[in-house]
Amino acid sequence: MSAFEALLAEERRVIDAALDRLLPSAEAWPERLHEAMRYAVFGGGKRVRPILVRLACRAAGGDADAVLEAACALELVHTYSLIHDDLPALDNDTLRRGRPTVHVAFDEALAILVGDALLTEAFAVLGRYPEGRAFAPRRAEACRLLAEAIGSRGMVGGQVEDLEATGAAPDRVRLDRVHRAKTGALIGAATGLGALYAGVTASQGASFAAFGSRLGLLFQVADDILDVTGSAASLGKSPGKDASAGKLTYPAVFGLAESRARLAELADALAHEARALEGGEGPLGAMVGYVARRDR
Amino acid sequence: MSAFEALLAEERRVIDAALDRLLPSAEAWPERLHEAMRYAVFGGGKRVRPILVRLACRAAGGDADAVLEAACALELVHTYSLIHDDLPALDNDTLRRGRPTVHVAFDEALAILVGDALLTEAFAVLGRYPEGRAFAPRRAEACRLLAEAIGSRGMVGGQVEDLEATGAAPDRVRLDRVHRAKTGALIGAATGLGALYAGVTASQGASFAAFGSRLGLLFQVADDILDVTGSAASLGKSPGKDASAGKLTYPAVFGLAESRARLAELADALAHEARALEGGEGPLGAMVGYVARRDR
Repeated sequence: MSAFEALLAEERRVIDAALDRLLPSAEAWPERLHEAMRYAVFGGGKRVRPILVRLACRAAGGDADAVLEAACALELVHTYSLIHDDLPALDNDTLRRGRPTVHVAFDEALAILVGDALLTEAFAVLGRYPEGRAFAPRRAEACRLLAEAIGSRGMVGGQVEDLEATGAAPDRVRLDRVHRAKTGALIGAATGLGALYAGVTASQGASFAAFGSRLGLLFQVADDILDVTGSAASLGKSPGKDASAGKLTYPAVFGLAESRARLAELADALAHEARALEGGEGPLGAMVGYVARRDR
Repeated sequence: MSAFEALLAEERRVIDAALDRLLPSAEAWPERLHEAMRYAVFGGGKRVRPILVRLACRAAGGDADAVLEAACALELVHTYSLIHDDLPALDNDTLRRGRPTVHVAFDEALAILVGDALLTEAFAVLGRYPEGRAFAPRRAEACRLLAEAIGSRGMVGGQVEDLEATGAAPDRVRLDRVHRAKTGALIGAATGLGALYAGVTASQGASFAAFGSRLGLLFQVADDILDVTGSAASLGKSPGKDASAGKLTYPAVFGLAESRARLAELADALAHEARALEGGEGPLGAMVGYVARRDR
């Protein structure tokens, strides 16, 4: 295990423990809802988004421990988006990280409401943490920043266009727009929030957010490629699903070889950006390599 | 038209204009999503929740004009909750305020995403308004207060138990819990937020929130009764739907006569509370009468 892999493992342990403290107990009313929220959140996620909040906060000179709970809000949002994307009316996926999706394990009505509750809980967490009067203006700004990233002009907008693009002719402009909105916006919010909590200037915050947006694009390109090249065991879901569903993906638009070349090119550019943000080699740079090379 | 009805009409005009400014144009990407968001929001709502934010703010000594935009967030949340409640997997309603519901007028996937986008937009608005550094701590607190009211232990939790209770034997304890969570929590948040923005103490804020919660209960009891006694034309939806769907309602538990008696008793108690909050006769008291007597 590399030093960065050890860091990731430790981050996941700390974040999982915080998520466990933040989420209502499965014994609290309404029990079935809370059980399903926990089923969805503790389903083997890699916690990339909360980790990025903490890494960006540290790189920007802030205290990563102070932003632990706030970072977890990003994982709640990510989980909500997966649950709603998986619904029968949307992507109709039955398997996620090797387990039945929420609407299969519970039912469709509950899956809709679990997503709603997790999205809402994210803002309860951001409104409460980091605690203390000094952080209050940043808490309000964090709610605004996240909501703008994941709303109709961001993540949800990307999901709408992704559905509209499904089955249509491959289109480069549209592909770029969908990937930026659907994946880039939330990851850009993660790095942007980390910098915001560190108290950087607006222009430095914008640099961190822009890096995250492009890292999200890298993430999505890698995901598109893996859907073509991965196995069911390594993916935790059915491979080839994008192509058979007529999804707009990098391989559909550029072919596999050019998609790989573009992935490598973007990874190089991002490694350079990470060095600028961190003042040398650091965990954000290592994250770029991790995303570009991840095997699932 | 009474003075209070004139006040309501003017409030609706001001709030509709603010909602129009806050919501993205239907010509902005993604156009179909924004068109559907506007279809849902501008569908004849009575704007009771944003009006209550403003009335409570004024009663607590604050500036109702300063909270206009923030008040609109409550209408966005209310609209999202109706859209998701109406979905085929939940209440499967095809008509709302005399028009096709969002999943009928557009499609089911878009209805889910329109709800998600409106809920998200509510927090973007609360994170941004009221503007100014002095309001920043209240903006963060508003996000927390609203999110806690409408999350798994509030509005969404009530919706889950409402679904679970459908078709089961009428149960008074459960009825009370569902109504408090499903309707009371959001209306309690409305009056609580109005007081919060006025800068009252925590204990005064709690009194305003408690009044709103009970006003929400009054609202729901009146709604349950109207489902039995109203016409399709006056309701804008099919009457008798609760009973035929086996919903847990006041008439189902207490019968119509006792439901009416309980409505009158609750209205009297609330009129008394309103006088205490407003220091005499005022618009919150008039709102109690309006809700108790409303014809739809």
